[in-house]
Amino acid sequence: MKRTLFTVFTLGFILVFGRPATAQTVDSLPSWNDGKAKQSIIEFVATVTEEGSPDFVPPAERIAVFDNDGTLWAERPMYFQLLFALDRVKALAPQHPEWEDTEPFASLLKGDVKGALAEGMKSVVEIVMATHAGMTTAEFEAVVSDWIATARHPVTELPYTEMVYQPMLELLAYLRENGFKTFIVSGGGIEFMRPWAEKVYGVTPEQVIGSSIKVKFEVRDSTPVLVRLPELDFYDDKEGKPVAIHQQIGRRPIAAFGNSDGDLQMLQWTTAGQGPRYALYVHHTDAEREWAYDRKASMGRLDTGLDEAEAKGWTVVDMKQDWKVIYPHEKKQQ
Amino acid sequence: MKRTLFTVFTLGFILVFGRPATAQTVDSLPSWNDGKAKQSIIEFVATVTEEGSPDFVPPAERIAVFDNDGTLWAERPMYFQLLFALDRVKALAPQHPEWEDTEPFASLLKGDVKGALAEGMKSVVEIVMATHAGMTTAEFEAVVSDWIATARHPVTELPYTEMVYQPMLELLAYLRENGFKTFIVSGGGIEFMRPWAEKVYGVTPEQVIGSSIKVKFEVRDSTPVLVRLPELDFYDDKEGKPVAIHQQIGRRPIAAFGNSDGDLQMLQWTTAGQGPRYALYVHHTDAEREWAYDRKASMGRLDTGLDEAEAKGWTVVDMKQDWKVIYPHEKKQQ
Repeated sequence: MKRTLFTVFTLGFILVFGRPATAQTVDSLPSWNDGKAKQSIIEFVATVTEEGSPDFVPPAERIAVFDNDGTLWAERPMYFQLLFALDRVKALAPQHPEWEDTEPFASLLKGDVKGALAEGMKSVVEIVMATHAGMTTAEFEAVVSDWIATARHPVTELPYTEMVYQPMLELLAYLRENGFKTFIVSGGGIEFMRPWAEKVYGVTPEQVIGSSIKVKFEVRDSTPVLVRLPELDFYDDKEGKPVAIHQQIGRRPIAAFGNSDGDLQMLQWTTAGQGPRYALYVHHTDAEREWAYDRKASMGRLDTGLDEAEAKGWTVVDMKQDWKVIYPHEKKQQ
Repeated sequence: MKRTLFTVFTLGFILVFGRPATAQTVDSLPSWNDGKAKQSIIEFVATVTEEGSPDFVPPAERIAVFDNDGTLWAERPMYFQLLFALDRVKALAPQHPEWEDTEPFASLLKGDVKGALAEGMKSVVEIVMATHAGMTTAEFEAVVSDWIATARHPVTELPYTEMVYQPMLELLAYLRENGFKTFIVSGGGIEFMRPWAEKVYGVTPEQVIGSSIKVKFEVRDSTPVLVRLPELDFYDDKEGKPVAIHQQIGRRPIAAFGNSDGDLQMLQWTTAGQGPRYALYVHHTDAEREWAYDRKASMGRLDTGLDEAEAKGWTVVDMKQDWKVIYPHEKKQQ
């Protein structure tokens, strides 16, 4: 009962007199080194959450949007969804004897990934449609859930969900603690992210936005199902990102986080709004702990964006300098 | 200080010992007559919110979807968005001298609405595209906001936002108080609803789903804008509703509310999920206080849906019997 009474008083105190002093001194971003990047985040959050200030933003309008590949998790040696698709081709091959002499599948099944992707986006689309369509949404969800639970990254041998960036997990949580709604706005497939995004990122399915293929409603044996069709519905990259934000969120974000030129329009759209705005690029500078690439990369290129970030004073995270750890498992080892 | 201390104790008490007893006896649905409909709602909410029960649903999964036209607000003499479009044709006519001898605009400008809509959907689409596209999203938002603030319904002479159903406003709030997320899933245009849905329904822009036209990202004089194109993006009716729910919410609702056959697939999709599910049809039975129509209506027809509701035991609200008041202003007069 003593403990209960203490709780009553403590909670009452917090409710009446505001947050306890410790809330402000606890470091919500422990994996970020002190520096300009970390400071800019904390200052922005303080600015928009200060009641009575002219820059105060009501919680309903505190929308933060995050790219996924290269911003929340790694994207090397290639987008993880593409690695998933390659694995699926192998798994589905016994049901598709015709793939043995049909490109891009034939090369892929011989282990020649480079040859399979030789025709670029055309090959990618064929592989994606063959592996992502033709089943119900529930079946696809099960396939993704199985894969994400068992597959391992070809270089690190970690599960893919362990290749998320610890400092960004802290940032997502920190923003939500401060009343933000955190959305993913990814070039990747919505249905590839939703099965695990809530558990890994704390982002609920309705706050996951991405590329999609068309689905069709059907009643099969009196049971309604949604069937995935081999037809692109929306490609959520570059100019598509502000469009998707508009169509699905309907409110301009006040903060945007990306890592490539594919995120540039999202950052432009976000920062062009009235009042305080925040834009951040994750710059891949750490060849040792992760990968280093920017202006000349074929996937996740950051070139125009880097120039614009400098011109407009957006925050650029130097992964090597700004992040104490990259992946969650490093933190556990500390 | 005495008051403060009292508050401290009261809040502490609530936090430690749960909600005060009064919370369960206060009637959250005062505009609903006691009866099967009201009882079924309360029982469903009690079922899914009872911690420890096998039917308990975590708050993140408490998704409720509502049709708009005829479910949350009236839809007679025609969909309000169509009345908006007709008003816009008149307002834009001076900029379009060619409309004087081009159908459907010519008839419309002569006051012959029936003649203008003679070709059905074809005429509607032409009127909608001419009035809803060709401007930026910000410009369209301003147009809708102006109209909704000033226009009056041709029969009741009420502002359209006063023709929302008071019992449904109470239901939306009641569900949210119980941890539900309330989404609108309407055949109407998303951008026609978002400017006022938060104020009127308490539904934030990202929880408004509906039909849409395509938009395009452009940079004009260094300022990024989204331009509305005269091309359908998505028609959110019938089979489209479960598709939109899947694409935008990504989680099957546990409760669905509609009033027409256009909502049937949404109710089917919702109730086909595992665990407790709830479906409700608003049946327009009150010719005196509102309008009475169902199986033979040309807009908002409820025919197949009424049969299926009976067969599956879904709740059917008899507006005349179940609702004490229809519109908010009646409540104020009580």
